[in-house]
Amino acid sequence: MRIKIINPNTTASMTAKIGAAAVAAAAPGTEVVVCHPTRGPASIESHYDEAVSVIGVLDEIHRGEAEGCDGYVIACFGDPGLLAARELARGPVVGIAEAAMHVASLVATGFSIVTTLQRSCIMAAHLVQAYGMSGFCRKIRAVDLAVLDLEDPGSDSTARITQECALAVEQDGCGAIVLGCAGMADLAGLISRQLGVPVVEGVSAGVKLIETLVSLGLRTSKRGDLDFPPAKPYAGDLSGLAPKPRRAER
Amino acid sequence: MRIKIINPNTTASMTAKIGAAAVAAAAPGTEVVVCHPTRGPASIESHYDEAVSVIGVLDEIHRGEAEGCDGYVIACFGDPGLLAARELARGPVVGIAEAAMHVASLVATGFSIVTTLQRSCIMAAHLVQAYGMSGFCRKIRAVDLAVLDLEDPGSDSTARITQECALAVEQDGCGAIVLGCAGMADLAGLISRQLGVPVVEGVSAGVKLIETLVSLGLRTSKRGDLDFPPAKPYAGDLSGLAPKPRRAER
Amino acid sequence: MRIKIINPNTTASMTAKIGAAAVAAAAPGTEVVVCHPTRGPASIESHYDEAVSVIGVLDEIHRGEAEGCDGYVIACFGDPGLLAARELARGPVVGIAEAAMHVASLVATGFSIVTTLQRSCIMAAHLVQAYGMSGFCRKIRAVDLAVLDLEDPGSDSTARITQECALAVEQDGCGAIVLGCAGMADLAGLISRQLGVPVVEGVSAGVKLIETLVSLGLRTSKRGDLDFPPAKPYAGDLSGLAPKPRRAER
Amino acid sequence: MRIKIINPNTTASMTAKIGAAAVAAAAPGTEVVVCHPTRGPASIESHYDEAVSVIGVLDEIHRGEAEGCDGYVIACFGDPGLLAARELARGPVVGIAEAAMHVASLVATGFSIVTTLQRSCIMAAHLVQAYGMSGFCRKIRAVDLAVLDLEDPGSDSTARITQECALAVEQDGCGAIVLGCAGMADLAGLISRQLGVPVVEGVSAGVKLIETLVSLGLRTSKRGDLDFPPAKPYAGDLSGLAPKPRRAER
Amino acid sequence: MRIKIINPNTTASMTAKIGAAAVAAAAPGTEVVVCHPTRGPASIESHYDEAVSVIGVLDEIHRGEAEGCDGYVIACFGDPGLLAARELARGPVVGIAEAAMHVASLVATGFSIVTTLQRSCIMAAHLVQAYGMSGFCRKIRAVDLAVLDLEDPGSDSTARITQECALAVEQDGCGAIVLGCAGMADLAGLISRQLGVPVVEGVSAGVKLIETLVSLGLRTSKRGDLDFPPAKPYAGDLSGLAPKPRRAER
Amino acid sequence: MRIKIINPNTTASMTAKIGAAAVAAAAPGTEVVVCHPTRGPASIESHYDEAVSVIGVLDEIHRGEAEGCDGYVIACFGDPGLLAARELARGPVVGIAEAAMHVASLVATGFSIVTTLQRSCIMAAHLVQAYGMSGFCRKIRAVDLAVLDLEDPGSDSTARITQECALAVEQDGCGAIVLGCAGMADLAGLISRQLGVPVVEGVSAGVKLIETLVSLGLRTSKRGDLDFPPAKPYAGDLSGLAPKPRRAER
Repeated sequence: MRIKIINPNTTASMTAKIGAAAVAAAAPGTEVVVCHPTRGPASIESHYDEAVSVIGVLDEIHRGEAEGCDGYVIACFGDPGLLAARELARGPVVGIAEAAMHVASLVATGFSIVTTLQRSCIMAAHLVQAYGMSGFCRKIRAVDLAVLDLEDPGSDSTARITQECALAVEQDGCGAIVLGCAGMADLAGLISRQLGVPVVEGVSAGVKLIETLVSLGLRTSKRGDLDFPPAKPYAGDLSGLAPKPRRAER
Repeated sequence: MRIKIINPNTTASMTAKIGAAAVAAAAPGTEVVVCHPTRGPASIESHYDEAVSVIGVLDEIHRGEAEGCDGYVIACFGDPGLLAARELARGPVVGIAEAAMHVASLVATGFSIVTTLQRSCIMAAHLVQAYGMSGFCRKIRAVDLAVLDLEDPGSDSTARITQECALAVEQDGCGAIVLGCAGMADLAGLISRQLGVPVVEGVSAGVKLIETLVSLGLRTSKRGDLDFPPAKPYAGDLSGLAPKPRRAER
Repeated sequence: MRIKIINPNTTASMTAKIGAAAVAAAAPGTEVVVCHPTRGPASIESHYDEAVSVIGVLDEIHRGEAEGCDGYVIACFGDPGLLAARELARGPVVGIAEAAMHVASLVATGFSIVTTLQRSCIMAAHLVQAYGMSGFCRKIRAVDLAVLDLEDPGSDSTARITQECALAVEQDGCGAIVLGCAGMADLAGLISRQLGVPVVEGVSAGVKLIETLVSLGLRTSKRGDLDFPPAKPYAGDLSGLAPKPRRAER
Repeated sequence: MRIKIINPNTTASMTAKIGAAAVAAAAPGTEVVVCHPTRGPASIESHYDEAVSVIGVLDEIHRGEAEGCDGYVIACFGDPGLLAARELARGPVVGIAEAAMHVASLVATGFSIVTTLQRSCIMAAHLVQAYGMSGFCRKIRAVDLAVLDLEDPGSDSTARITQECALAVEQDGCGAIVLGCAGMADLAGLISRQLGVPVVEGVSAGVKLIETLVSLGLRTSKRGDLDFPPAKPYAGDLSGLAPKPRRAER
Repeated sequence: MRIKIINPNTTASMTAKIGAAAVAAAAPGTEVVVCHPTRGPASIESHYDEAVSVIGVLDEIHRGEAEGCDGYVIACFGDPGLLAARELARGPVVGIAEAAMHVASLVATGFSIVTTLQRSCIMAAHLVQAYGMSGFCRKIRAVDLAVLDLEDPGSDSTARITQECALAVEQDGCGAIVLGCAGMADLAGLISRQLGVPVVEGVSAGVKLIETLVSLGLRTSKRGDLDFPPAKPYAGDLSGLAPKPRRAER
Repeated sequence: MRIKIINPNTTASMTAKIGAAAVAAAAPGTEVVVCHPTRGPASIESHYDEAVSVIGVLDEIHRGEAEGCDGYVIACFGDPGLLAARELARGPVVGIAEAAMHVASLVATGFSIVTTLQRSCIMAAHLVQAYGMSGFCRKIRAVDLAVLDLEDPGSDSTARITQECALAVEQDGCGAIVLGCAGMADLAGLISRQLGVPVVEGVSAGVKLIETLVSLGLRTSKRGDLDFPPAKPYAGDLSGLAPKPRRAER
């Protein structure tokens, strides 16, 4: 199977890190395509960044459908454009926040999320509610790092994230940690070994869930509200995104 | 005060209808600017349409900030880009779904929503949950009309919507109706007179709520997660949307 | 339009303060009538005070209906008698807790409430749940002042309230403050300027929401459970409150 | 122990019926005092009736405290004035809606409520939410009888209520019925025998719960928000209700 | 009436303590049978202990049905096997966690639970959610004592539990305490006197609730999902537990 | 990796069917061990059956730990003993209800559950709440078949289940079906092809989720409430289940 991992921001080093995590997680028969869009924000740290990044995500889904991809992972912890992407794709699509939370709920009765910026906590909080995870999420914590600080080898980001995870384990009554940024995709093993608890990182979790869905023959439901978008004209320089008529391929 | 009403789709007849409702609702001293984006979908009937329409909404907020607008109404029942728009704007921003639901909860112990397409019901359902309106929303109903059918003077859309509203009043135990599409902005009075219940339409409700906020001196909080988006580069043909450094003007 | 602002307690200085806030908020064409009942508690600090105060509120609604009032604001943060008042009135009725919370949810992703007495927090908590605001209310705080301390020019109440609001902004992850007592109606501007966040005060918010509803032609729904109370005899010295037969005026 | 059963309306035949149910339920050592207020509505069928009835309830609690009552049952399905009554009383206070729902949740995984008027359903719905019973209450049904029709021996009220209960058992997936009006206090046994399911009636349930609390030595907590109301003046012809200073008797 | 109090663990000293509390609470006419199973864990401190203890609980219900018991109390704060026991029994069954929480919600607007081990908090948390008590439970606290430490007269367990209850009253905004272990059945009076708040202990609460249900003629509903288990073979050394065909005795 | 699939009932034909589904779903490198306990109920159709079946599940987890199993699937839609099993196991454990619901929520915005007996619906309902799936589960339906009817090749069970799934798709507004019984493990493909929607069956979903967790290196958290059960004596013929002291192997 061929699955596509979409980094919704345009920073190549982060795409590389995400790709490494995805490839490490993938099963032998899985072809992993990793990409980032050609347009959009360098990092996603606000609702605004996230909203604009959706265009790039949809660009990549369009390309993926043309290339015959069987499933997709949206590799940003805000899961930008998730439902729109599901409408566009024949196969399944998962976001890494969704993937990480679902997986964490299977190995602990509660988890805490550790993310980068304080202002991003609200996005995670909204996803926790939307995904039905309120009974499992103990706390959402931020280390007050910019996303791209995670790309700076000279920063103390790893130490600070590990320390915040340790505080979560001590104070929150949680049994597992969810890492709240795709830029932390390389840290799960390290922190898990240091703290002795499961640490869930969404890129690898997302890859496995997509493999799960594809191998079970489960595609996005085209019955009802995730059906292909109805064809119509789009104006201006977004006209290239206009949905085309599609034969239902349920 | 100057307030801007943004039709997130690019259909001029709908913008005109929305504008008429907005102008009719506005107080004497309010300057109403009505617009639609230059790029984006002709109508919004899927998560995909909605996701792409956000770009046009943000375009218009950017322009509005430059033009000194004091507040904004996003005139599509999915409230596309609401939180992103709030980050961008100094003044307040409301969506028409949000406006209509809040207002309806003040005149009845429960309301039903009547929208166009069946597949749009899920968007309304997600907003009901996000806005804390689960205790007030009795049911979400669709008449299975395309959005642009509302623009066709020859269609029987008015009759069908009225009929669905009548069913809601009979069967749902609701005391009020919320019209679930900006294209129904001209129908509230008519249906209310026929059915003898309050019928809330979001464009006029949104105009009044923005006037309320502006006249109370209440702007979008720039403390925390709705602060201006941090400045950073955006790639490709979306680079024009990159957030600029901004002096905090709280 | 003529709107009536009802201070449910019988303390004249508080009525005056409430009146000043209401008048300052009202639009040019709005006639504001401010009153307090002739019977009932001097201040509302318990469920018991609140329960008894409802009689005075209903007295004033009865009078208001006779005087042709178009809408009402119940100016105590417990919103005493709100649903009963809605049954009695043709026009809309809002409580200041309800008004403030709805408005605050439009300018921030979360707010904290700052009220007077610790024992009043439970009333605010019950309203937060009833109004669907659990997802928006970060914390309810009390400064342990009696309500009438707010009327004492020699008290340090303003400083203490401001300080508690500052703590809320620092610790609660909230973007806005809701002032939890009608006696704080004069403090919103001051505290907002000091803390740099929106501070919502319910009297002015309530006035604007009633203006909103009246100007939209939205009255309390007389379909279903907010219909006029059925006529029947009342015994003893409450017989004057007995509902009379009323022609439906939907 | 001496417990007082308060019918919040002023209809003597209903008080008699409530009294019979209470006496039948009481344990040998329990002295049951049954009463209705000297002022207030003849029946409670609206939020307005309910709000006014609270005065009579509080009158009777005041008297009960002077007479040394050990506990109270508020015998109207809206539980009018429950928290205010708890503040006033040293001993425990329960409402019959509260009592019936708690008890029903112990003998079935779900119950339906059958009440009189359609417009009363909303009050039951609000109590279901406030008492945490949303997971247990399957449906709230009304037979569209006025409360005092239950007092008319010539009416077909018993047949209609029984029929509605039968529908609930068939259609709602409930294992028990809660009767939603104190005026149905004589029907539980009859309907239970006919339908073969537990039918819970709040007056007897309330008597047993008060006996339970009193015999366990559990009084209303005077720590925090149910403490005696602070002493203060009340104006006008409600001045007699003003709370007096009270020595804490925790 | 004859009621059976089942200590789900096999520690005789704890059974004795539970029995003393039950007998002290029972009404004159109530015959109290106290027992523990002949098989199962010495104490219940994990989901695993609890799961295995259910067998012993069901053994005792089987015996109780043969002996003509009218109702049952399951005297462990995890309420092990509650719904299974209800299926088996003609009469009512309550668990002590359920009993204590329901009772506490009648005398305070909020309670905190104080239990033994930190790891047991999650079981209490799950019960709080299942019983609809989320709006009432302020906090769940543990003193980090093993259950059988409560049986050791030389331990400082009473002091530590009292101290934790005191912290709950100070910090949690609760008006009552729920003791979270059957082994604390002898402490409620003592702690209540020391702290001046209602302290609810589930064994006595459970006895009174069963007396309540039995005297109201309310048995477990045999309509629907708590009907007697369908007869069928069980394999191996659990074959003795196989449900026999039963004439419905509704 | 070696994973163990536990059919909690003792019916061999059902174990065989479950095994076939598991083997078909497993990845090349996965060794699948399928078993049923030597003691316990022939089928699980009541809370009672489920409670007793937990013993057999725990027997098999004990054996699995001795045999070096890396993860477990509990193959009954009530997920019996899930948290107890997690305490006992080093590796991950998932139930098939949990697995199916999580997976279904990734391919549709809502699903309906189709199970066997009406009385089993309540168990599914409780799991939906416990797993946070209330926002996704549209309806729980039963076909009123006994579990072992699914094993009877002459029954019309397949037709009836398919028909109920068709009704769900038509009436419930769901985009996917969750099959609510392990005995339906062979029907997912068939029904999915007939109805054109994703049909999720928990055995295969559980196998893939366990593979996911194991390959991600995620074991059950031994920090906090899922730690190995504390060692202690068990009495009687359950003494063999007593937890032994265990070196933490986190």
